[in-house]
Amino acid sequence: MLIVVALGGNALLRRGESISAETQRSNVRRAAASLAGLVGAGHRIVVTHGNGPQVGLLALQAAAQSPDEAYPLDILGAETEGMIGYLIEQELENALPNGPKVATLLTQVEVDANDPAFRNPTKPVGPVYEQDEAQRLAAARGWIVALDGDKYRRVVPSPPPLRIPDVDVIQLLLDSNVIVICAGGGGIPVVRRGDGSLVGVQAVIDKDRTAGVLALEIGADALLLLTDVDAVYSDWGTPHQEAIRRTTPESIRKKEFAAGSMAPKVEAASTFAELTGGIAGIGRLDQSLAILDGSAGTQIVRAMGGSQQYGTAPPPS
Amino acid sequence: MLIVVALGGNALLRRGESISAETQRSNVRRAAASLAGLVGAGHRIVVTHGNGPQVGLLALQAAAQSPDEAYPLDILGAETEGMIGYLIEQELENALPNGPKVATLLTQVEVDANDPAFRNPTKPVGPVYEQDEAQRLAAARGWIVALDGDKYRRVVPSPPPLRIPDVDVIQLLLDSNVIVICAGGGGIPVVRRGDGSLVGVQAVIDKDRTAGVLALEIGADALLLLTDVDAVYSDWGTPHQEAIRRTTPESIRKKEFAAGSMAPKVEAASTFAELTGGIAGIGRLDQSLAILDGSAGTQIVRAMGGSQQYGTAPPPS
Repeated sequence: MLIVVALGGNALLRRGESISAETQRSNVRRAAASLAGLVGAGHRIVVTHGNGPQVGLLALQAAAQSPDEAYPLDILGAETEGMIGYLIEQELENALPNGPKVATLLTQVEVDANDPAFRNPTKPVGPVYEQDEAQRLAAARGWIVALDGDKYRRVVPSPPPLRIPDVDVIQLLLDSNVIVICAGGGGIPVVRRGDGSLVGVQAVIDKDRTAGVLALEIGADALLLLTDVDAVYSDWGTPHQEAIRRTTPESIRKKEFAAGSMAPKVEAASTFAELTGGIAGIGRLDQSLAILDGSAGTQIVRAMGGSQQYGTAPPPS
Repeated sequence: MLIVVALGGNALLRRGESISAETQRSNVRRAAASLAGLVGAGHRIVVTHGNGPQVGLLALQAAAQSPDEAYPLDILGAETEGMIGYLIEQELENALPNGPKVATLLTQVEVDANDPAFRNPTKPVGPVYEQDEAQRLAAARGWIVALDGDKYRRVVPSPPPLRIPDVDVIQLLLDSNVIVICAGGGGIPVVRRGDGSLVGVQAVIDKDRTAGVLALEIGADALLLLTDVDAVYSDWGTPHQEAIRRTTPESIRKKEFAAGSMAPKVEAASTFAELTGGIAGIGRLDQSLAILDGSAGTQIVRAMGGSQQYGTAPPPS
């Protein structure tokens, strides 16, 4: 199968870990082992990844050196595609010494310049600030800041991805059996101007949504969204919480999930399953093969073999 | 012709300019116009670029945030391949609205772990420091520092590039008429361990040398090293200085050039001309086509049509 795999933030950094180069490298090694398992089972893969903590770090680093100049988000995104893509490529090549070639492509992702997200930035990036400092930075750097708990953070637009201008290049590499790492951090956000040219914008794109668009555009058979929870849960955090093992887009869309974490995953997975009939899976980073065969994680599929199965129901054979 | 074009630091930043995102973008636009001229004339191109000021900036930014932790050079290099590659790709795509696809590949470049350069670091990176501060940083970050004029700078190894592990992927894209941007900053320096795996090392690689290796490995017809001087000069800075218009590797190797600036360019160009019989050109960023046809810059070629031509001699027809 041709599989798009999206690595969540925990592939690079687990909760509470500091963001040193060594920590990222050792986490990427775990992710590479999981990806190598998919390749070893005969699948072709395209890998994408998050970049939240890394963009935050690079923004902090830039601000530490030039306190009142905000480095543009498209360039910071491109930097993280370089840094993270390099680590994933190297560890994946080392995990597959006789495997296919691995290529990391910088990837622009087009968004709609008229998307309402640009008028209503909601996605927090970077550290939290006290009110005074937040107001000072907003004035100095042209930021919009918003309350986050009892502190303030910068918020930026997070428009949905429209298309991947370089998809032909990705397809070309896949057709030659190259493993492609691309669209890191949801891709470098760009808009198309009136004259047809592309230019970077100050926004971030949800990486699971971009993974979904990518999977559609390349005709993938499966979309795996890997993270640090073992499945999607209904009634998460309540006494009634229950792991969803296998469901349909129609059914799972009736439930509510945390905005900014599980909700975009569920939506991207549901859309992929609905439009393609392929397998969309959500689950733990180290269970990629098991999620694919239905023995772990959550599968969202258009055609259900029988009734919906929740909780401890056995996986489909 | 298939041409490897190496963009010097001035393609992104001219002397004295601050390193803002906007400055880099507007300089890259000039470079893209020159590259588009080559494509418009029917040539296929592979683009590589320097990253000196950008690595310095990212190192400074990282150090400003974590003063005693040196961010690894392989990761900083990967970040600059992202940042600069993105700018070049976007501006080149915009300069060639109906042109070939453009792909930016992260590129590791293998060096020899036993290269003497690792025992004798000589390449300065980053800012200058007073002696006390230099000694403090050397102790805190594990740096080697050396005198640079009357101040101190960090020095790192600059081993020669051995090979480009991903050259098959570059070739594959070229065979499909894709313009490839790769090996930025001389490539991400890696060494091969005893078990065959690759790992990043704390070094930088000269980008002109890497461009030469790349040109050899892909069988390029020409190698263009673009910079901010209009030609290679003999006796540079003396009353006898003279532009070298066309020469042979044998002849130009008898002359002396500035280490770290013109010398590696001359050596990379000479080696390419010698081993391939192709055209190696050195000259100004905005004269790429003229350097190729011999009406500007310096050409180093193995087979000389007639006697060596210096100064104002007409270009070969």
